[in-house]
Amino acid sequence: MDIGFIGLGEMGAGMVANILKAGHQVRVWNRSPERAQPLADAGAQVVATPAEAFAGDAVFSMLADDAAMREVFNATLLENAARGLIHVNMATISVTLAEELASAHAARGIEYVAAPVLGRADVAAAGKLTIVAAGPAESIDRVQPLFDAMGQKTWRIGSLPQQANVIKLAANFMLAAAVESLGEAATLVTGHGVAMQDFIDVITSGIFPGPVYQGYGNAIAEQRYEPALFKARLGLKDVRLALEAADAVMTPMPVASVVRDSLMDAVAHGDGDKDFAVLGEVSARRAAR
Amino acid sequence: MDIGFIGLGEMGAGMVANILKAGHQVRVWNRSPERAQPLADAGAQVVATPAEAFAGDAVFSMLADDAAMREVFNATLLENAARGLIHVNMATISVTLAEELASAHAARGIEYVAAPVLGRADVAAAGKLTIVAAGPAESIDRVQPLFDAMGQKTWRIGSLPQQANVIKLAANFMLAAAVESLGEAATLVTGHGVAMQDFIDVITSGIFPGPVYQGYGNAIAEQRYEPALFKARLGLKDVRLALEAADAVMTPMPVASVVRDSLMDAVAHGDGDKDFAVLGEVSARRAAR
Amino acid sequence: MDIGFIGLGEMGAGMVANILKAGHQVRVWNRSPERAQPLADAGAQVVATPAEAFAGDAVFSMLADDAAMREVFNATLLENAARGLIHVNMATISVTLAEELASAHAARGIEYVAAPVLGRADVAAAGKLTIVAAGPAESIDRVQPLFDAMGQKTWRIGSLPQQANVIKLAANFMLAAAVESLGEAATLVTGHGVAMQDFIDVITSGIFPGPVYQGYGNAIAEQRYEPALFKARLGLKDVRLALEAADAVMTPMPVASVVRDSLMDAVAHGDGDKDFAVLGEVSARRAAR
Amino acid sequence: MDIGFIGLGEMGAGMVANILKAGHQVRVWNRSPERAQPLADAGAQVVATPAEAFAGDAVFSMLADDAAMREVFNATLLENAARGLIHVNMATISVTLAEELASAHAARGIEYVAAPVLGRADVAAAGKLTIVAAGPAESIDRVQPLFDAMGQKTWRIGSLPQQANVIKLAANFMLAAAVESLGEAATLVTGHGVAMQDFIDVITSGIFPGPVYQGYGNAIAEQRYEPALFKARLGLKDVRLALEAADAVMTPMPVASVVRDSLMDAVAHGDGDKDFAVLGEVSARRAAR
Repeated sequence: MDIGFIGLGEMGAGMVANILKAGHQVRVWNRSPERAQPLADAGAQVVATPAEAFAGDAVFSMLADDAAMREVFNATLLENAARGLIHVNMATISVTLAEELASAHAARGIEYVAAPVLGRADVAAAGKLTIVAAGPAESIDRVQPLFDAMGQKTWRIGSLPQQANVIKLAANFMLAAAVESLGEAATLVTGHGVAMQDFIDVITSGIFPGPVYQGYGNAIAEQRYEPALFKARLGLKDVRLALEAADAVMTPMPVASVVRDSLMDAVAHGDGDKDFAVLGEVSARRAAR
Repeated sequence: MDIGFIGLGEMGAGMVANILKAGHQVRVWNRSPERAQPLADAGAQVVATPAEAFAGDAVFSMLADDAAMREVFNATLLENAARGLIHVNMATISVTLAEELASAHAARGIEYVAAPVLGRADVAAAGKLTIVAAGPAESIDRVQPLFDAMGQKTWRIGSLPQQANVIKLAANFMLAAAVESLGEAATLVTGHGVAMQDFIDVITSGIFPGPVYQGYGNAIAEQRYEPALFKARLGLKDVRLALEAADAVMTPMPVASVVRDSLMDAVAHGDGDKDFAVLGEVSARRAAR
Repeated sequence: MDIGFIGLGEMGAGMVANILKAGHQVRVWNRSPERAQPLADAGAQVVATPAEAFAGDAVFSMLADDAAMREVFNATLLENAARGLIHVNMATISVTLAEELASAHAARGIEYVAAPVLGRADVAAAGKLTIVAAGPAESIDRVQPLFDAMGQKTWRIGSLPQQANVIKLAANFMLAAAVESLGEAATLVTGHGVAMQDFIDVITSGIFPGPVYQGYGNAIAEQRYEPALFKARLGLKDVRLALEAADAVMTPMPVASVVRDSLMDAVAHGDGDKDFAVLGEVSARRAAR
Repeated sequence: MDIGFIGLGEMGAGMVANILKAGHQVRVWNRSPERAQPLADAGAQVVATPAEAFAGDAVFSMLADDAAMREVFNATLLENAARGLIHVNMATISVTLAEELASAHAARGIEYVAAPVLGRADVAAAGKLTIVAAGPAESIDRVQPLFDAMGQKTWRIGSLPQQANVIKLAANFMLAAAVESLGEAATLVTGHGVAMQDFIDVITSGIFPGPVYQGYGNAIAEQRYEPALFKARLGLKDVRLALEAADAVMTPMPVASVVRDSLMDAVAHGDGDKDFAVLGEVSARRAAR
């Protein structure tokens, strides 16, 4: 297929590489053009403007946040796009913006699919993302081969794009709650002289298997917060978006508020670029340890 | 071996059954003697007083809470016990009581091992418990064959019995935090029209595998709170004990406080005997849904 | 003086009435023109557009929220205003918007003063407001006679307008925290059979004198939530703004998060138009009473 | 009257001094006898055992906590006391202990009145305490002259002694919540460059008059935490007791949990003997300021 790809951060770069490997033609655009060079070497066509990328059979976008989305996908870009184009937005954005984008695309006859992903840069590079897609079924059908190139599993949630974003934000809230809980538990057990690693071994071999408790649990046990696989300030961004989405449906989420406070504590202490596991440090600081 | 077993609730009964199957002689005592009958049929010797059970090579106890422990394992019982007896307490008790029991046993020359378990009644019946043991290494060595009869894995934590209790309480806190988070996430996603089951399917197939997210997640998705596998009021008991243990080492645990409030809300609404998953109901109530 | 006044809600209407009484000429504008009639009878000149009001020596605004402010005080209005005009914004708005307005006015040579008020509609009608003013000192000097007509006391905070808004939001957060605490205390004492009124009498006659503890305390004791002097949904708006302002300076405010959750609970239960004291009801609901 | 007084800490010493001034005979006992000397100089009779003090028309007690109460007012002391003696306990103790004491006294025919006080040592010395009394009406009538010597106002709550303790704990919770709120507000306003003193001036001159907001607000504005008028660790003790009392009636108090965590943070950081206002420091620390 002839596709465009907008946003070549760590995630986007890995995704494009896998699309190229699957044999598709890709026009890529990134604000900082130097990020595009390795992909050009791999066969991508680097274009100079978002508008040049926003064409073909389908366009994928993977930008950093709401602000970047609003700047690139402005009224002019949408007005000038071909009717029938499919735009698949894979970034983690607010539910509010997801709703606005769905309306704005519909008004111009552009198909809009939300397809946020679970998995970090290493998973993207490996083509093993979990993709949560929502939007018109026929549009998703058409881009499924691309999803298959980028991910190991696509969940199809329904026809309202923003619902995929809700799931993504709720999943990241769950992740944040688990890491905060690990941090609190670490401070509790070490306060009683128990090695955190012993605790992590017990729970991950039984009730809490899987990458979250193992990965973050071990990082907290070892007080290893760099290099960051998922930065605390990005975790804060997502918890804020989850709280905003909860606010919109008048839903108290007290654990989410606790985690937001802990993440702000981390960022205020200069640890925003450290790994999410730095919540263990925040918890220890509350107990002066 | 010739052992005693004190406390034949749902957990204890399953554990004794497996010990009998493994070919050991067991004297059993329970406050309500009728609970002992099925075990008598399976070969256990029912005795009339805790003192008769508190003899032999080793004695295991599995009572409901601190109060029951204090009542049975009083000074008189300990004074009259044979020196060198090993007492293995498998109940979930407070760290404070664990420390007191360790001292009281040591003062009378009785070995004391704390060996709380992870797993509910069905797991106990299947002999698949996870056992977290702390205490004198030789004592644990001697009772290891019994642990092997009751569980699939024994974690040996160290020589201070109370540290095993700390791990148990921290693990149950983690469980409580996960269920509370599931409840909050459920209210968020359903508020935006997403089916909770879809959300659970996405997270349990990827970042959150394992029995906790699947079991409680599905229960919340189906609003199925009975029969209770783990009652909300017992969850509240354990979160309180975790907070007490945290207080003793001056450790704030804000998520634990949130969960305690939610569990009190559940119990106040008459749902204390429902499953822990009823936290999903508490979360929904906060949002008037 | 020749002044304009934009926004004739309950607060604005009382303020204009006092300005008229003090002998000033006032051009008034309100989105719903019928609100202007009683003031016309009292001598105000009703104008048809914000632009007609946005002229003279000084213009005061008292609109409902950020959205209303943004709509009325758009680029066109500011472009067409006379240089040297003083705009005194008395509404409770976000710190972010206050900063934007300060810049936008400065760019057009319009003086901008933020002067949010403490006190509800009855206090405004009585001309007894407490005014918290920040902005250029000479501008505040010039409008001081108007402040004297509307309020009993003007606090001058500094030259950065948004700092007055910060104080207003922090004050409303304090209010919210006090009402939430009263609600929690009410549920505690009544749970032990103590009459809430007895408790309120004890604390308000000693450590907690003043209108907040007396007014809201009595309302909670009497479970009297209507008519609303300060609506729960407006309280929620202000706590949200306080949290936003805290977020901008990476400041965790856990009590503010608790109050936000309680206010969302109230609004979700259909009590948004009841008095702020309805937090007592939320607290009681958590305990199933 | 012929009275006994047990417990001569800062509070008790001031209270006894005022009772002596009012012309009563007082037998005093304190664990550390040197504390009794100044009162002996003022006319008190120092006795060597609690039993000697626990006699006469009425006995007042003002001990530090539940543990001290349980140790002194044990079964032996009560057994040997004269029937009809009135025991007035003015200490801040748990609701649970208050209930136990009421029963234990009743069983021996001793009258029991709970009369906790509002006010710190300086207020006690000045004879200006606020007294909250509950118990048999005739007993309170008989000791009213003593209350008049110690305090400026006696509130009579009812016949169940523990209800006076509930009010005291709820009042101290309100105090704790106010100080925590001041701390959070301080971090918010100073984060935006506003002087905390300006904020305190605004709120204390209007919506929040009275000693709490002025005293603790000024202390936080000046970051003046010593000498302590009310120590953080004693504040923590009372908030814990409030949470225990809430737990007994299954009442979530989320603000109380937040304050408990902040106070533990303060104590963990070695500030337990600083003034309660040190919560301002805890709040600042969360924001890395």
